[in-house]
Amino acid sequence: MTTEIQSKNTQIQKYVDLLKNPEKGPKKKRALARLITFIENGGPEAAKEIIPQLYPLTGKAHIIGITGAPGSGKSTLTSEISNHYLEQGLTVSVIAVDPTSPFTGGAILGDRIRMKKNFTNPNFFIRSMANRGQLGGLAMATKDVIHIIDAYGSDIIIVETVGVGQSEIDIFKSAHTTLVITPPGLGDEIQAIKAGLMEITDIFVVNKMDRDGADKRVAELETMLDFGENIQIENDYSQAKVVRCDGWRPPVIKTNGLTGENVPILLENIHRHFIFLEETGFKKKRLQFRYKHYIIEILKYFLVKNVEEIVFSNEKINEFIEKLLAYEQGSDPYTISEAILEVFLNRYFS
Amino acid sequence: MTTEIQSKNTQIQKYVDLLKNPEKGPKKKRALARLITFIENGGPEAAKEIIPQLYPLTGKAHIIGITGAPGSGKSTLTSEISNHYLEQGLTVSVIAVDPTSPFTGGAILGDRIRMKKNFTNPNFFIRSMANRGQLGGLAMATKDVIHIIDAYGSDIIIVETVGVGQSEIDIFKSAHTTLVITPPGLGDEIQAIKAGLMEITDIFVVNKMDRDGADKRVAELETMLDFGENIQIENDYSQAKVVRCDGWRPPVIKTNGLTGENVPILLENIHRHFIFLEETGFKKKRLQFRYKHYIIEILKYFLVKNVEEIVFSNEKINEFIEKLLAYEQGSDPYTISEAILEVFLNRYFS
Repeated sequence: MTTEIQSKNTQIQKYVDLLKNPEKGPKKKRALARLITFIENGGPEAAKEIIPQLYPLTGKAHIIGITGAPGSGKSTLTSEISNHYLEQGLTVSVIAVDPTSPFTGGAILGDRIRMKKNFTNPNFFIRSMANRGQLGGLAMATKDVIHIIDAYGSDIIIVETVGVGQSEIDIFKSAHTTLVITPPGLGDEIQAIKAGLMEITDIFVVNKMDRDGADKRVAELETMLDFGENIQIENDYSQAKVVRCDGWRPPVIKTNGLTGENVPILLENIHRHFIFLEETGFKKKRLQFRYKHYIIEILKYFLVKNVEEIVFSNEKINEFIEKLLAYEQGSDPYTISEAILEVFLNRYFS
Repeated sequence: MTTEIQSKNTQIQKYVDLLKNPEKGPKKKRALARLITFIENGGPEAAKEIIPQLYPLTGKAHIIGITGAPGSGKSTLTSEISNHYLEQGLTVSVIAVDPTSPFTGGAILGDRIRMKKNFTNPNFFIRSMANRGQLGGLAMATKDVIHIIDAYGSDIIIVETVGVGQSEIDIFKSAHTTLVITPPGLGDEIQAIKAGLMEITDIFVVNKMDRDGADKRVAELETMLDFGENIQIENDYSQAKVVRCDGWRPPVIKTNGLTGENVPILLENIHRHFIFLEETGFKKKRLQFRYKHYIIEILKYFLVKNVEEIVFSNEKINEFIEKLLAYEQGSDPYTISEAILEVFLNRYFS
């Protein structure tokens, strides 16, 4: 171990110890921020040092995912929801994930300014995460960060992400309750929801309810939900569909993030959903699903890392290469890799 | 197997059979283009159907990698080199790889127009490949495509790529002879060469030799090479350094891609390098290195694919998840993944 790694690990240890301290305060909050930075810069290698120590402290937070297209008023609503929880005396953390941006990482995005009034609140923590080509990927880093914040002792963790492609699915894989924001007049966004968001949505939010078309949008969503109840959802193990809650009809809530109108009703529904998860056993099902994905991501990362080392350090590989260089039928890279894999997988998983 | 896959496989088979036909002609050339499209769209899954059948026909082409910054005159020089080989009666193929572009894929890039006069030449084949987020990645797709073109019967395969980050290393991992183009007056490009290109360069080309500073650039490179001979290159197995040719000093050749000046000298040196590789046994060493990387990429792809299926279908994983949900020390996702991996890897590679 080099001195550099040693010193980094000593630092990590210092912050981990601070985080484990049950007493809250600015020092502990700073330790939280620093540990997140270690994850952002060091990826799964850093997480491997941090998470095992903090994991026993996790599992307590209610994790709320909020997703929606740009312009749907996500940040304002997130801010408003945060305020309500803070007023209840709860500790609230926001992770703002932007998979479309290669920037930030600790820095605060422009529209975060609105949350400014909370910055000095000791019970509030906010962190932006962007796609900086992290080792292991942004989705994995987000999972790590959620766990660190959970261990820190945040009662509520809001993971907010802009709704693009894979990111809503990722948020669903991390949250207890997923809110999808769909304001009126965002063109064919309703189409996008039909296409796949329905399976991951626990609560639909029609934000900017003061605008024309809000009631129309609510009606559209309700119709879609009526229709959706009869849809046979395929059991695709890699997708979210498998833990879709039977018996939970996603409520459609109109809100105004700017004025705070109806936000208490939204909070009631979030709470109602959490209770539903606990009472029906879906909370556990979802956790199982979530941890499978977490483990898959960790395994993928370390497998890929290890396979390179192994192929280059293992003598057996040279026999395979010799075969390859004979250019004979059945000795091509794909057939040989398949043979390696088959043994590899059978030995362990049979 | 669905009908769709069946019909795709029937198509692949048709083109594979056409490619195996020793007689050349437009039908065979079309089959080549179609098979490359299958690789681009189907990734390693398609390659798995194609490569094993064609592999015994490979290993005959001389693969030349050409890399350089945008504006270095790569395409013009590639065109000029191609012409010389064509005049010698050889079959020439060009794969233009652009990892910075998400477009093309079969389409021809703008600056390819210069090669227009060769388009109708039955001995010439050109294909652009861009970074379209291919399954398995662009580097892997390029390796697959090289093999298909090799099986097709191309004497010379030129893999041209814009010199950015990983792409030069990738090209080195595919080619017998790697040319690095560094025209005069490209600012601090010489710095970049110092930083890592030196290990992968077999021939330095100072293109646009008519420009001011060409001789200065040649002198700089020669000095760097004088200096480099005394540099202890680290034995980093995952990098190119390990197969750096002892005893080969990369020549520095001035060329003018537009007029063709000195291109014959460049070709002589390419040939000289190929003979050197064969006579010293470095050709085999490099092939071993190359196939290790190829296998690693294939293994990575299928491992990642398999691990997801396995984690979701294997019962054993549920025991791990149960442990996780106890939130106890030593039962966190990282420690559990490590345990899974350890068995996984030890069982097979010990």
